[in-house]
Formats: sequence, structure tokens, C-alpha cells
Amino acid sequence: MDALTILDRKRRGGRLGREELAFMVGGYQRGEIPDYQMAALLMAVAIHELDVDEASHLTAVLVASGRRLDLSGVPGPVLTRRSTGGAGEKLDLIVAPLVAALGVAFPVIAVPGIVGHTEGSAEKLAVIPGLRTELAEPELIAVLREVGTVVARQPAGIVAVDHALFELRRLTASLKTTGLTTCSILSKKFAEGADGLVLDVKTGDPRAGMRPLLEAEGMARFMVEVGRRFGRRMVALVTELSQPLGRGIGLLPELREVLLTLQGQGPDDVTELAIETAAQAVALAGRVAEIGQARDLSARALKDGSALARFRAMVARQGGEGRVVDDPGLLGVAPVRELLRAETDGVVSAIGLDAVERATLLLGAGREAAVARVDPRAGLMLHAKVGDAVRRGEPLAEVHAESSERAGLGLVALRDAYVIGHDRPAPRPLVHRVVQ
Amino acid sequence: MDALTILDRKRRGGRLGREELAFMVGGYQRGEIPDYQMAALLMAVAIHELDVDEASHLTAVLVASGRRLDLSGVPGPVLTRRSTGGAGEKLDLIVAPLVAALGVAFPVIAVPGIVGHTEGSAEKLAVIPGLRTELAEPELIAVLREVGTVVARQPAGIVAVDHALFELRRLTASLKTTGLTTCSILSKKFAEGADGLVLDVKTGDPRAGMRPLLEAEGMARFMVEVGRRFGRRMVALVTELSQPLGRGIGLLPELREVLLTLQGQGPDDVTELAIETAAQAVALAGRVAEIGQARDLSARALKDGSALARFRAMVARQGGEGRVVDDPGLLGVAPVRELLRAETDGVVSAIGLDAVERATLLLGAGREAAVARVDPRAGLMLHAKVGDAVRRGEPLAEVHAESSERAGLGLVALRDAYVIGHDRPAPRPLVHRVVQ
Repeated sequence: MDALTILDRKRRGGRLGREELAFMVGGYQRGEIPDYQMAALLMAVAIHELDVDEASHLTAVLVASGRRLDLSGVPGPVLTRRSTGGAGEKLDLIVAPLVAALGVAFPVIAVPGIVGHTEGSAEKLAVIPGLRTELAEPELIAVLREVGTVVARQPAGIVAVDHALFELRRLTASLKTTGLTTCSILSKKFAEGADGLVLDVKTGDPRAGMRPLLEAEGMARFMVEVGRRFGRRMVALVTELSQPLGRGIGLLPELREVLLTLQGQGPDDVTELAIETAAQAVALAGRVAEIGQARDLSARALKDGSALARFRAMVARQGGEGRVVDDPGLLGVAPVRELLRAETDGVVSAIGLDAVERATLLLGAGREAAVARVDPRAGLMLHAKVGDAVRRGEPLAEVHAESSERAGLGLVALRDAYVIGHDRPAPRPLVHRVVQ
Repeated sequence: MDALTILDRKRRGGRLGREELAFMVGGYQRGEIPDYQMAALLMAVAIHELDVDEASHLTAVLVASGRRLDLSGVPGPVLTRRSTGGAGEKLDLIVAPLVAALGVAFPVIAVPGIVGHTEGSAEKLAVIPGLRTELAEPELIAVLREVGTVVARQPAGIVAVDHALFELRRLTASLKTTGLTTCSILSKKFAEGADGLVLDVKTGDPRAGMRPLLEAEGMARFMVEVGRRFGRRMVALVTELSQPLGRGIGLLPELREVLLTLQGQGPDDVTELAIETAAQAVALAGRVAEIGQARDLSARALKDGSALARFRAMVARQGGEGRVVDDPGLLGVAPVRELLRAETDGVVSAIGLDAVERATLLLGAGREAAVARVDPRAGLMLHAKVGDAVRRGEPLAEVHAESSERAGLGLVALRDAYVIGHDRPAPRPLVHRVVQ
């Protein structure tokens, strides 16, 4: 077996077997396959894509590249979720205690936020004073056993080769691919011990870098098939993300919204998606005969405070100041808050994700580089969302920052995000598809 | 302009403009674009290929990466040829003096043989004692002006980035592509000052690594179009190479065959292809009204000794021992010569190129690595070629080596090359297409 034969096969659109993928990935990990050969392979894979067989082989190879979390001591099945991310995605912290409240173990194991918005769940929770998310493996498992959920940073060594491959993909423009993204996501969740996954593949405007519906559905189907080939319980939602999810963006604004939702007073879209995701998890765990029943149970657990109680227990068990759960005002607020006001009467016809992301970065609430410091109190709150009627001078949104300079910059960017028109746009469903 | 946008465009099958190609190639040459990004680009180009516009842009960028030979002092047009190579390809050394004898300047500027057989023309000629092929630019031009031809190693600095790109393509399995191969070949010939090119694209059995006819024709057409976009006179022959060309393989055996052909006694295939190639060059130079006339002139120049006279003049001008031209016996012969004999009666139905190449390497007449020493006297002579009737015990071929151990290894490999059958295979044309 040699790298050139493997590269030649994939260049011509052929399929690679498990041994060949292990040869390349293992060789790369050991420093025997140089960057340029791996970069060429990644580009060939990005163009010709992987089929289900290849992706399941590659997922297995990636899992084998590092340590595995042993959750066999946790009464299973252990479920979790993974979304493809986006502005305002704070579902992890709501769904986890909600599913736990329904008797199904549901850990949230998060890698630190990379550039942009993805996977900051552990950082959002860590805004609570005293709360620890860097848990050693025994403690992580103990919290999960006792509370039914845990929010922790990924232990070191899970899919050890993933970071280097991700960087190489980023530097060679081969990130946006179904196969490699699938293998990266699934390998981490499987190495973290998940028996089943509720995936959330976002769809939206391609001009904002989102997947169009057909492509998102294809990706959802592919991920479900690969995961099932691996013997895991799999379901994928294809959900709309053409404006930010909910109203809060930024660590503290999102944490507030999480608490509000767990108190039964969350925004409609966040509440609906939390209930649907939790219901799919409960159904996947085999705890209900049909999904309607699971939705009812989930909705009730949000209303009756049992999800909130589970969240409170998790916060306390991880060393956090428990009082903030019922009194979020204790978390403080950013020193500078300014309102964005409507300049005309009309209806909000769009809130551009690109501009929102730019505003988030300018406010200090986003990560421009892997090492950048994120201001926990910075962010924004959307008062008006798509379809809302607004009058001139009424507040559209509020920016939170540590200085009026940052607030000003954020306001300018956010102004670009809002498009005010005359007619109410046709409403779009939040959950487009459930792929099983 | 940035590398990621360019990589992303080509990954998605888009086209690159001249500025983008210059950004990548120039950046790579200056060490600003890392190997892995260039490797990813080469793989994307290998898969999506280049269109004529892109290839002419890339050719221009490659030419600009190094020095150019200034042949403006040579009465033009200056023509030359380039074949895609293969066992027994010794046409350069025959066609060059033949075309020169017909009044058209025809230099042979060769890069040192890479692994395998290609482009050893200067090395073959350098078997003649005293003959120098490393000529400084003024001398190269002087010989070309005086004799009408010159055989020289490529001066340093021509398409300076070509070697690094070629190595990167070799190490990432992206060599076998029409676009990149075209740009590499044309850029060198154009930087060397050619006003026109007779290309020779070989076709043969894909199992022996040769291009099938349609693919070879496509490549010929592409190269002609790209070269013409560049304002050069272009013609391409698509020629059969399903068995070695001629009878001799190896530096000395090929040089002998060159002399024999110039004396009007060469093998039929070599003589036919030399006449056709020279005729196309003369026609391309505008020296005849129609190609039939050019063929007659070429055939006569081989018969009447004027091509040989031009060869003799070139050898003398480059410091070579002139007597060997008329008395090749002075060149000596390898110490060990052994015959391969037919094991059955029959007709030669195939001579496998793979096995011939293996035999050549084992005899010491081929280059296994770029730094390997090639034994100038080693090689082989094919007595029987495809279609020849043979009787058991009759010689099929003769191997030449410096030791009986090497000769023995070569014989074993060569035995695999010969396939003896019952029926004479249908003859195949030598020149399949003339693409203009």
C-alpha cells in the first residue's frame, strides 16, 4: 500500500477502503504522510465526495485515532445532539436538561468555540460564577449518572487527529463538504460515547453561507446513514436558520434566553425546536410508542419546571452559583447598552446573518481568532424579528458592550442586518424535515 | 486576492483567471504559498481540468516564472518537436538535421531524462566522444544559426518553477492530466524560443499506461489550441506506440539507429515517422504549398545524405568525434550481448511496453531515479517485431549489458514482453491523426 496509489484512485473518482484510509490518516498522524499529500487527498475527497461505505470507514479510522470516553457505566442509551450551528443556536443547554428530565441520559460535550459561533455551549454555561466545565473523566461520568446530564469541555485526546485535519481543510478550502464534515462530527460524538444522535442540519440562504434545503436534506440523510452503519440510533432534523434563532446572541444574552426558555417563557422558535429535539431524543431512546407522545412529554417538562430543576441540579453539581438559575439578574449586564431604532414604518422582511455575525464580532461577543477573548456580557438582543411590524423610532434590537465605542460599531453593523419592507414575508416552517 | 478564495473556486469547478494563476504560481515560487495549498490546487486542477483559456493563462504564467531564450537572431520561424515519449523514441535526433537540411531552423533542447525514458535526446547524442551538449546561450544560438540545428541541454532558469511543480504533481498523483501536462510542455518550448511546434502524442494500450486514441486526440487538439492562442504555429500527430518504436532501446543502441536512419537504412516505422514529422515542420514553416511536397522533400533529404551531412556538421560543431557518424563501430559495444530466442514457432502478436521498460532498467539502460547513472552502452535490439513470423530457436532480440548478471536479468524480463501467437495481428497505422 502506498500514498500515490491511494491518491491516484481518489483522483480518478474511485473508492477507498478502510485500510487505505487508515494508512493515510494514521500516516499523517505519525508524521509519515506529509501535509501536501494529505491536502491533495482532502481536495480529491472534497470534489469526488465520499460514499456511505467510505465515510463509515473514515469515521472508524478517526475514532481510532484517539481516546474514547467509556460511558458504559451510565444507564443507556446515552443520547446527545449536534447542530451545524449558526447565530443564536443555544439549544444544547435547553434540550439536555429537558431530555434528562424525561429519564434519558444526555451529555453535552463541547469543543471550545472555533472562529465564529459554533459549539460554545460549555462557554455559555461557564458564565455562571463558580461553574466548572473542565471535568476529569470520572467526574464527567459521575455528574451524568447522578443528574442525567452534564455540560463539559471535550476531554483531551478524543479523535486526536481531528484538529490537524480540520486546520488543513480550512487552509485548503475543503471545509464545505458533506463527507468530511460528517466524519468529523460523527467520530467525535461516537468517541465521546453517544449511543444515539439527534442531528440538526441548518438550511438557509446560500448567499449567507447556508446550505439550501435540498443540500441540507442530503447531508442529513447521509449522516443518518453513516451513523446507522455504525450501529448508532440516528435521526436528523433539517431546520430553518434564515434569521438568528431566538432573540439573544452572545454568551450572557444566550444564557439568559436558555433560562427563560426553561422557565416556559422562551421565544417561540427556541421553544418549538427544543421540544421537537427533545421529543426525537426520547423517541430514539425508545421511551415512547410514538413521537406525538414524546412531544407532549417534552412540552410538559418545560412547563412544569422539571427541565429547569434538572438544569439547577446540574449547575449545582458542577460547582455553579445556583441562585442565578432563578434570578438571572445576578449575572449582571454589560455596562453599555444601546438601542437600534427603526428608521421607517414597515415590516421586518429579513435579518441578515452575515451582518449579525459582523455585529457580534464588533461587540466583542464573537471569536475572530481561536485565541481571542470573548466578552461574556457582550452581545445583542433582537426585539423585532422577521414578520414583525415596526414603527419609525421603535427599538429593533439592543446591543450590549463594554464600551460605547464597541457598542457604536456593533450598532452600525446591526443596522445593515435589518431589512424593513412593506409586506409580511410568507412564514417559513422551522422544522422542514425529520430524516430517519 | 487570496489563496482560499482561489482554491474554493477551483474546488467547485470554476475557472481561474490569469491574475489568480499568477498569484498562486508566483506565491509558490517565492515560498509564500505553502506546498499543501499548491498540492490542493494541483489536485483540484487534475480533477476539474483546465479549459483552453485557463491553460493559456497558466502557460504564460509559467513562461514568466523564468528566463527566456532569445532566438530572434536566428532566421525563423524556429520550429521544434515534442513527443509524449515512450520506449524507443529517438525521433528528435533524426528529425532535427532532416528539417535543418530543408532550410528550417530546428533546435533540440532537452531536459535531462526523468525517471523512465523521456527526453534523453541530449544524453543519447553525448555518447559520441568529445561531444558537448551543455552549451552556453551564445554558443547554442551560434550553432543553431550556423548548422540549422543544435542539440543542447536546457539552459538553467527556463520555466524556473516547473521542476518544483512537477515534483509536487509526482508526489500527489496529479501527473496524468491534460491541462497541467500541456502547460508544462508548451511553456518550456515557448520559453526556449520556438515559433512553432510539431507535437507527437502517443496512443496505445491503457493497461501499459498509454492514452487511448480518443484521449490522445483530445490532448493533441487541446495542446494545438492552447499553443495557437499563444500565437505559435502548431500541429500535432497522434501516433501509435503499442510496441517500441524502431529496434534499438538504450543510449548507444538508439544512437546507432539514428545514424542508420540518417543513412537511409532505418527501420520502417522510424523512417516513416521521421519523414512525416519533418514534413509537418516544413509545412508549418510555410516552405511548401502542400504537405505531399514536404513529404517528398523530406524523404529525398534522408536518401541523398543531406540530412546526414547536417547531422555530421552539428556533431563537429559541438566538438564530437565526427568519424563515428560514418563508422558507428567506433562507438564500441557493450561487453556482454545475449540473444533471446523464440520458444515456439508462430507470429509475434505483441511486445509489452511494461516488460520492455523493466528489461531496460534491469540492463542498466534506464533511469530508476533522477540521480541514477545510465550505462551508455546497455540496452536492447529487437530483431523481431509485431507481425513478424518466427521459428523456434530463432533470435527475437538481443540484450546488451556490462555484466552477464545484468544481461540475464534483462533477458528474463524481456521474455515476458514477447507474446507469440498463431495469427498475424491486424496492422495498425503509425500516424492516426494529424491535428491542426
